[in-house]
Amino acid sequence: MRIGVAGCKGRMGRTIVDAVAAAEGAQLAGGSARPDDSWVGQDLGTLTGHGPLDAPVVDDPVALVQRADAVIDFTTPELTVKHAELAAQAGITLVIGTTGLSDQQQAAIRRAARHIPVVQAPNMSLGVNLLLNLVQQVAAALDPNFDIEITEMHHRHKKDAPSGTALALGRAAADGRKVVLDQVADRGRDGDTGERAPGSIGFAALRGGDVAGEHTVIFAGAGERIELSHKASSRGIFGQGAVKAALWARAQDPGLYSMQDVLGIG
Amino acid sequence: MRIGVAGCKGRMGRTIVDAVAAAEGAQLAGGSARPDDSWVGQDLGTLTGHGPLDAPVVDDPVALVQRADAVIDFTTPELTVKHAELAAQAGITLVIGTTGLSDQQQAAIRRAARHIPVVQAPNMSLGVNLLLNLVQQVAAALDPNFDIEITEMHHRHKKDAPSGTALALGRAAADGRKVVLDQVADRGRDGDTGERAPGSIGFAALRGGDVAGEHTVIFAGAGERIELSHKASSRGIFGQGAVKAALWARAQDPGLYSMQDVLGIG
Amino acid sequence: MRIGVAGCKGRMGRTIVDAVAAAEGAQLAGGSARPDDSWVGQDLGTLTGHGPLDAPVVDDPVALVQRADAVIDFTTPELTVKHAELAAQAGITLVIGTTGLSDQQQAAIRRAARHIPVVQAPNMSLGVNLLLNLVQQVAAALDPNFDIEITEMHHRHKKDAPSGTALALGRAAADGRKVVLDQVADRGRDGDTGERAPGSIGFAALRGGDVAGEHTVIFAGAGERIELSHKASSRGIFGQGAVKAALWARAQDPGLYSMQDVLGIG
Amino acid sequence: MRIGVAGCKGRMGRTIVDAVAAAEGAQLAGGSARPDDSWVGQDLGTLTGHGPLDAPVVDDPVALVQRADAVIDFTTPELTVKHAELAAQAGITLVIGTTGLSDQQQAAIRRAARHIPVVQAPNMSLGVNLLLNLVQQVAAALDPNFDIEITEMHHRHKKDAPSGTALALGRAAADGRKVVLDQVADRGRDGDTGERAPGSIGFAALRGGDVAGEHTVIFAGAGERIELSHKASSRGIFGQGAVKAALWARAQDPGLYSMQDVLGIG
Repeated sequence: MRIGVAGCKGRMGRTIVDAVAAAEGAQLAGGSARPDDSWVGQDLGTLTGHGPLDAPVVDDPVALVQRADAVIDFTTPELTVKHAELAAQAGITLVIGTTGLSDQQQAAIRRAARHIPVVQAPNMSLGVNLLLNLVQQVAAALDPNFDIEITEMHHRHKKDAPSGTALALGRAAADGRKVVLDQVADRGRDGDTGERAPGSIGFAALRGGDVAGEHTVIFAGAGERIELSHKASSRGIFGQGAVKAALWARAQDPGLYSMQDVLGIG
Repeated sequence: MRIGVAGCKGRMGRTIVDAVAAAEGAQLAGGSARPDDSWVGQDLGTLTGHGPLDAPVVDDPVALVQRADAVIDFTTPELTVKHAELAAQAGITLVIGTTGLSDQQQAAIRRAARHIPVVQAPNMSLGVNLLLNLVQQVAAALDPNFDIEITEMHHRHKKDAPSGTALALGRAAADGRKVVLDQVADRGRDGDTGERAPGSIGFAALRGGDVAGEHTVIFAGAGERIELSHKASSRGIFGQGAVKAALWARAQDPGLYSMQDVLGIG
Repeated sequence: MRIGVAGCKGRMGRTIVDAVAAAEGAQLAGGSARPDDSWVGQDLGTLTGHGPLDAPVVDDPVALVQRADAVIDFTTPELTVKHAELAAQAGITLVIGTTGLSDQQQAAIRRAARHIPVVQAPNMSLGVNLLLNLVQQVAAALDPNFDIEITEMHHRHKKDAPSGTALALGRAAADGRKVVLDQVADRGRDGDTGERAPGSIGFAALRGGDVAGEHTVIFAGAGERIELSHKASSRGIFGQGAVKAALWARAQDPGLYSMQDVLGIG
Repeated sequence: MRIGVAGCKGRMGRTIVDAVAAAEGAQLAGGSARPDDSWVGQDLGTLTGHGPLDAPVVDDPVALVQRADAVIDFTTPELTVKHAELAAQAGITLVIGTTGLSDQQQAAIRRAARHIPVVQAPNMSLGVNLLLNLVQQVAAALDPNFDIEITEMHHRHKKDAPSGTALALGRAAADGRKVVLDQVADRGRDGDTGERAPGSIGFAALRGGDVAGEHTVIFAGAGERIELSHKASSRGIFGQGAVKAALWARAQDPGLYSMQDVLGIG
């Protein structure tokens, strides 16, 4: 399976390139970068220390999609929508790790998924996807006297807060409680907050160093707490998960799939 | 429901007395202590700051069982077996928090449970019992490349290690993996241990201060860890759980029940 | 030493009452509450389970100060300034745990401290005051490539964020780096934050359950993190620290003292 | 400065090779491996992806020492003693990360240090060496009612427990208390331990996954805990520290130095 990597020069892009190069059954088809980037026109294998692989870096999404059986995309919402439309036309598979899509952008992804298999997940690791299940379960089992707080830490370069994964954990908790996250989320707590609103789900974001990603969901009741954590020690697990998703999706009917579908833990 | 508290003068005994005194639908029937103890013959309510309650402290298990609809017992294996036999004869309910029973002693509990409802659990908190479920699930979902480690911390007065709850968490993990804990447990790691044995389940016990009880189960794989924790901030939750178990068991047929049965999370 | 407790009916007020009642060398002189409070006019010892102590609850700060050799005050900035003025006139000792004072209010405290010994600290526990020292030291030893993040968790009833203790830890870190906290603090991180600002000190506040108070200062660099934590398992340590401060201050000259002075760890 | 890497094929050996190759002012002089190892006779730069560096892998410690201005050694006690003797004869610098030396072996290191600068430390990271200082300080400041516990987690391949760094932290704590670690260490707690011995220092070792190294020292008192942690997210910090030690030591008189000397935080 020939896999193209959108945004191949970024932090996650390089991680995905390494995962593709290391995976059995996968070949690096090429990558994409900005038109003015020095990588454009060169071989992605050579650039990333994997030796020459006939995998050019292009600056045109059309060219990337043409060369590939699947594209893995951890870029921006705008670019991801563009890749979804092109992938749907070309009939190839798409794996999306991009977060922060608007409702309209998400609708465009759903349209593309009528024609091709699309895997979309804010986090491709096995551990986080297991955790999503556990959080929903625990939230459903505990009465609302248990306060739910979600905290995460990421490296200093991360630009949004809370992380897409933290929000996904929040949605899992809200689902378990049969409430809507947007109506109960308490973000950026600061100043004269007053007492904690019953039923709210709190978020706190830490940034620093080169932390690959740590998430904890706390259920705090009278006299006891349950804490469920995931700690990534290497970004590699996200790249490996994305490649696993691409390989899995190739055998699926068109549709929008989650990482839990890929891992069979839905 | 009249509830008797075995070993009412100990750390857990007093916690249970407080929980009985505070619970709706429950009355303190009395307690038991050693024959030479100064509490014997006095009123347990008065002794523990709840005012006179016609709840004598006795030194004879027979007398305790006679006065009660249920006995809650967090004592020693020998004494618990004695209470089980007496409770079976008297037809009252028994709630057991005692840990460390031998196979023979456990068989005696099972015999008693043919005649009366018995609830037995190493930990009566809602949180720990939920955690037991989660641990079994995660152990079943993850392949054996994830190493399982269980660590706990308790106050300086605790006399056994690892805690009964840590061992119960280990059994839940072993069940999930379809192995037998005794064959894979790695306890008291120290010295030239060699590399970690694949498939083993490690235990580590910390002791200090007045920590009520903290347990963490770690699933450590390549590049990621899942950690599931329970932190008790007050021993009260264990007493409240025991009283809840007694009240629940009264309506049950004879049999041996777990705390997960009581909580409906089995 | 006769100790009066301002705001004796609140969460911290009761904790202090218990600490005074238990301390050697201290006597409960009385407490203060709002004019319309049902406690006013009753005996504080009786109200709090310590038996009659000739310690009336009054609604007038003047009356409280008149009866006492020292007043312990964990109330509001306005009330604390009032107590400082009265204590300075009466020549008694004052222990202040109130947080959130404005610069003007703090100036009033300093004026009072010209006439009487005043101990002021956002947190009276031994552990937190040790931690303040360590944080300053580590911040001074590490170069600014280590990102500093401060996270805290408190019970659901806490009304301000971050906690006064978290801010004190932040000031200790800023002191170590020879910067001013207000110029580098990053509070309530949420949304499109962009990359972490170099040299900033981040704060995150968690709320839930009945957590007495947990604080962690993280120094996150390339490839390693140092984390310094304090976990209070009982509010009692704050009350005991306040009484210790009152007893210590009695032998001091007028002046404004910190808890580090009291503990001799300055 | 030409640096030789003893045991260059092991986990730490490779990390050191990478650090030497990346450091300014340092050149890879070569490495040593077992006589039957396939690396012997090849170029270490080429073997480790740094390109040809004229840095042969030898099987003879004498040959390694002859080619180098400094040798970095994270091997076995026996081999380290051998390197110390040879380095003393040749007049080159030695950096030792090996742990588990007997008293006799340690005496041999001290003899070598009469002739050459030797840096010896169980852990070369900045963070751990800062932590050693903090732990000693806190242990000295707190009375013995605070129980000290040390816990660490490392990857599944680690063969000894507790880690050399955990033991160094324990010695720092014992120094702070003016006791001897061997007389108070409580290792491998398991079974019927009885209550915690006052004044003891407990150790617990966790093993699993690919954890680079995490250490926590807990001071647990009545109502509060202080916890001081170091978390390595990359083994690279140990290699970088070792190279920094070699470069620093070159300008020193003969003697036995600690990493705290190197870092100027003694």
